[in-house]
Amino acid sequence: MEIIVAENCGLCYGVKRALRIAKETRKMKKGKVFTSGDLIHNPRVVSELKNLGIEPVEKLGEIQGGTIIIRSHGVSPEKYRLLTQKKIEIVDATCPIVKKIQKLVERLAKEKEEIILVGNKKHPEIKGLIGYSQKKGIIVENEEQARVLPHKKKRAVLAQSTQDLSLFKKIVAILIEKTKELRIYNTICLSTQTRQRSTSELAAKVDTLFIVGGKNSSNTNKLYYISKSILTNTHFVESAEEIKPEMLKNAKKIGISGGASTPPEAIEEVVFKIKNSLKNQIQRENLIQCQS
Amino acid sequence: MEIIVAENCGLCYGVKRALRIAKETRKMKKGKVFTSGDLIHNPRVVSELKNLGIEPVEKLGEIQGGTIIIRSHGVSPEKYRLLTQKKIEIVDATCPIVKKIQKLVERLAKEKEEIILVGNKKHPEIKGLIGYSQKKGIIVENEEQARVLPHKKKRAVLAQSTQDLSLFKKIVAILIEKTKELRIYNTICLSTQTRQRSTSELAAKVDTLFIVGGKNSSNTNKLYYISKSILTNTHFVESAEEIKPEMLKNAKKIGISGGASTPPEAIEEVVFKIKNSLKNQIQRENLIQCQS
Repeated sequence: MEIIVAENCGLCYGVKRALRIAKETRKMKKGKVFTSGDLIHNPRVVSELKNLGIEPVEKLGEIQGGTIIIRSHGVSPEKYRLLTQKKIEIVDATCPIVKKIQKLVERLAKEKEEIILVGNKKHPEIKGLIGYSQKKGIIVENEEQARVLPHKKKRAVLAQSTQDLSLFKKIVAILIEKTKELRIYNTICLSTQTRQRSTSELAAKVDTLFIVGGKNSSNTNKLYYISKSILTNTHFVESAEEIKPEMLKNAKKIGISGGASTPPEAIEEVVFKIKNSLKNQIQRENLIQCQS
Repeated sequence: MEIIVAENCGLCYGVKRALRIAKETRKMKKGKVFTSGDLIHNPRVVSELKNLGIEPVEKLGEIQGGTIIIRSHGVSPEKYRLLTQKKIEIVDATCPIVKKIQKLVERLAKEKEEIILVGNKKHPEIKGLIGYSQKKGIIVENEEQARVLPHKKKRAVLAQSTQDLSLFKKIVAILIEKTKELRIYNTICLSTQTRQRSTSELAAKVDTLFIVGGKNSSNTNKLYYISKSILTNTHFVESAEEIKPEMLKNAKKIGISGGASTPPEAIEEVVFKIKNSLKNQIQRENLIQCQS
């Protein structure tokens, strides 16, 4: 039996940075400290932050005073304005990569270009980005939505930083037929690209794979779908507790990977649980053999 | 038995225009009239032009006086200079679409951008285009050549006007991973795109398909490969004479398509030959039935 943890998985630079900023802010500020929504898409980490006194707030308009940490996904300019008007102190932990994409969208909008944003319209990063587009942005979530777009002389296309690269390529392939001059900005962050490649390589060489992370995490969900398309025996678990013995039946080579919001402890616990389950299983098998 | 000629096939606008210009020039000029290489990649048409007194010349430096018709594929700026220096009268029949691509390459070269030209390095259009790139152009013929390109912050990519759209898309997909800002110019002419789509649709609904055209025609070769990848029973013939009875064995639904340099008469002759062959075959079958 072999357990292989994906070479590139777990917390990315932007998330680590946001977590560090949040904890430092909590130490420095006396009043209430909020985060714009869950700081990262991982219930376990969010609950730890709550214990420290860092509260996630969905509706920013409801905050009265205190300090708000803008999470790594960033927010729209309107939200910044709203917070400033309410005189709430802002600590900006937007991932520097997302910040760059926001500036790119802002620049393209000034050039009066149509901007296709390949991403999930419900994802906070996309909600933030579209706010910078001055109504020039169109969110495209899948190939079907790309196919119905009209022909254009010029347009630009970019992606949510955690987008699945193969979907981005498929959408670009459709846009090529509909656009004379298409500017492509590959804004998928390197860490996402490496993590996706690492997970798909792992899925190709193991017989069972566990994706560890929050079910509400967009990038972890993408890792799950990438792995599932290669290996049917892929399981998505939020924590070690969700691992059931039947998931490990006949497993000889087990892979583990996690998203940008999966803390290292969550992965370590999964490794521990699997090792333990398999040990018990082997002991039981030995027992049966002895009885016979 | 059914014969279906592809909805969009045969001579394109640029080639028809070049042929018209060549014939008009011949009528108007008293001296020798040349074309820069074969006017179109079809031996039959070239031979007809020779009979009219329009001679193809491969090495432009060898011409002494007279008039030269620049064929639809265009030539490099150096060749224009050479002809001007030699005081040879130039009649430019470069396809207006190719002319636009030449201007685009010239503009991108001025912007000091790396320009990827997806095309065949031996094709006259590409030989002409690369001449406009001021050494900023790189010809990419296949996916392997794209894969070895280094990472770049910015580059532009465009295609030979008769390029296979699916190959162009595959190369773009590779470049997306290697380029932060990729400007794509879909310079594949509409007539080529429509012809390729038409041929692949036809290949999917017939049991035998004939691609009619010059074996030296790049775009006709592409139609052949597109059809062959869908339908094994695809045959590439330059003229009706090349059709052998074994090609029509068991054929119930026959498709016919031709490239941008295939004259309508060549297609008509193929239709005629197939009808005749099958008539004879049917008559023979009837004869055998009568004897039994």
